[in-house]
Amino acid sequence: MSETRQPVASFAEIHALLPELPGPDRAAVAAAASREGQLTKPPGALGRLEELTQWLCAWQGQHPPRLARPRVVVFAGNHGVAARGVSAYPAAVTAQMVQNFIAGGAAINQLCTQIDADLRVYEMNLDEPTQDFTQGPAMGEQECAHAMAYGMMAVEPGLDVLCLGEMGIANTTSGAALAHALHGGTAADWVGPGTGVAGEAIQRKIAVVAEGVERHRALRNDPLALLAALGGRELAAIAGAVLAARLARLPVLLDGYTCTAAAAALHKLRPDLIDHCQVGHLSAEPAHARLCAALGKRPVLDLDMRLGEGTGAALAVQVLKAAIACHGGMATFAEAGVSGKDG
Amino acid sequence: MSETRQPVASFAEIHALLPELPGPDRAAVAAAASREGQLTKPPGALGRLEELTQWLCAWQGQHPPRLARPRVVVFAGNHGVAARGVSAYPAAVTAQMVQNFIAGGAAINQLCTQIDADLRVYEMNLDEPTQDFTQGPAMGEQECAHAMAYGMMAVEPGLDVLCLGEMGIANTTSGAALAHALHGGTAADWVGPGTGVAGEAIQRKIAVVAEGVERHRALRNDPLALLAALGGRELAAIAGAVLAARLARLPVLLDGYTCTAAAAALHKLRPDLIDHCQVGHLSAEPAHARLCAALGKRPVLDLDMRLGEGTGAALAVQVLKAAIACHGGMATFAEAGVSGKDG
Repeated sequence: MSETRQPVASFAEIHALLPELPGPDRAAVAAAASREGQLTKPPGALGRLEELTQWLCAWQGQHPPRLARPRVVVFAGNHGVAARGVSAYPAAVTAQMVQNFIAGGAAINQLCTQIDADLRVYEMNLDEPTQDFTQGPAMGEQECAHAMAYGMMAVEPGLDVLCLGEMGIANTTSGAALAHALHGGTAADWVGPGTGVAGEAIQRKIAVVAEGVERHRALRNDPLALLAALGGRELAAIAGAVLAARLARLPVLLDGYTCTAAAAALHKLRPDLIDHCQVGHLSAEPAHARLCAALGKRPVLDLDMRLGEGTGAALAVQVLKAAIACHGGMATFAEAGVSGKDG
Repeated sequence: MSETRQPVASFAEIHALLPELPGPDRAAVAAAASREGQLTKPPGALGRLEELTQWLCAWQGQHPPRLARPRVVVFAGNHGVAARGVSAYPAAVTAQMVQNFIAGGAAINQLCTQIDADLRVYEMNLDEPTQDFTQGPAMGEQECAHAMAYGMMAVEPGLDVLCLGEMGIANTTSGAALAHALHGGTAADWVGPGTGVAGEAIQRKIAVVAEGVERHRALRNDPLALLAALGGRELAAIAGAVLAARLARLPVLLDGYTCTAAAAALHKLRPDLIDHCQVGHLSAEPAHARLCAALGKRPVLDLDMRLGEGTGAALAVQVLKAAIACHGGMATFAEAGVSGKDG
């Protein structure tokens, strides 16, 4: 965010940002593709590593791409709908886990050390959960816009990739409701065990999602209004961070289901708004595969994880680093004196 | 290999090793599972990271597992069958790529730097290709057993994981023939583009594989004889290294199709012989998925790569390192003061 920009307080201001967002840098992509063709391997033999290198070039707007400064951001929020018994854990765990992030004891802390990333944790008014979305909108427009603006602050100059994650007891319920409202189907299509609900509790979760989506049915063609009505502060912050990253030419790795649902609201607004985002990891939450397919995203990794916190996004940074290392460090056929194809 | 063991020169000596091979360390697995259950995450939320931690414990025979010393080994061999026009590259590329490995210019060099692994490259008599397997056995028993013994030397005390890879123009033809002979079906089921053959050349490759498997049909119940008849020196060395790693309590990451085909010969001999092996990456070579399914292996990564050199195995080390970092570094619920499930 530029220093002179005023905090966003309405959806009109979000809409006003959209024409400013840059597209892919095609010259940087062409430079990457040209070099890949000369490296000592059969054409395309590094598969997605080559594709990810070009994606980094496209959205960083440079060749060679850079990955010295990855940042992992975790937004934490609490949800009124947690009181409906949709999670296996009490709502107090959100704040307890934030303390765990600060103390360095969570999975995401260990992964940030592995990838040499800085970790920023943003608590979003945990003492005042959003409203239960079956009773009214989770957030009003101004509250949602403020949360998006808050998310935008996670983007600073000089970063090379942004990993987005979340923590919030009951937020897979929120993400499922948002995905269902945006993409149709039935509530059961979009609901899974989250942290581990089963049996009767999962039926309750499905009913709550169906009830919330039905209640806010009138908003079905207004993605930002749905984000406010069914999302949570951390989901809104993720959407804001995705937009700010695009403005700053910063590629984004999304984490699991809840994070992808937040980005889906932007995709519904205008599909190319998340072209600078990859999904880092396919969640074991069953509906994540459905949502990724709807967005045309193929996750980088598939390791049966379902933790959130940005863990799946952070793990994918390892793959990006490998891609860049090969792209930058390999010899060309000419340099190595290796015969080319059908040579 | 223990210093006092004589070099293996016959399949009888290979068979004699088998009763010595250790099984999994169940106490180490139980210790890992017990700790996983106390860490600040929903049970199982780290998915395959938890499974891989337990696998490392099982086959290193210790808890906590260790990953300070990964080694990547690339065996290089030449194949008489290359003269049949089954590859997109001339056979001279095998030796040229070995020079590229030594000079540090190949993809595997960059990945070894990423994972902080040492790289060993073994040239296996490149000036004398094995016999064209459609004309006779690629190798005799003694030659194959010597190549296995050579592969065993890649295992030394103090290593924590062994990544196996190969380089050899035409060796996907060899791997496909071996997989077909071991697992049935038709030659077309097991043949793919390798480094990039297409059209008429792929039909020729299928015909060559069918011809070779038919020629050595009498050996179909003798996996080591098939390895000699249809494999190559680098495939035999991989099989030897897998056995030596088991003796040394060293978990193994297999690379792509050719490497997995070599391990498949051991699996046919006795299925548990490759329980200490994971497949690091699902190759874009189409038959690799079929072969992994036949062996009951789910590759760790799926990034459309098809390069060999151990690249897919080396990339998977990143995932193992992440798994160990989470397992060792995370706080327990008690340490972090986080409420447990349904708390």
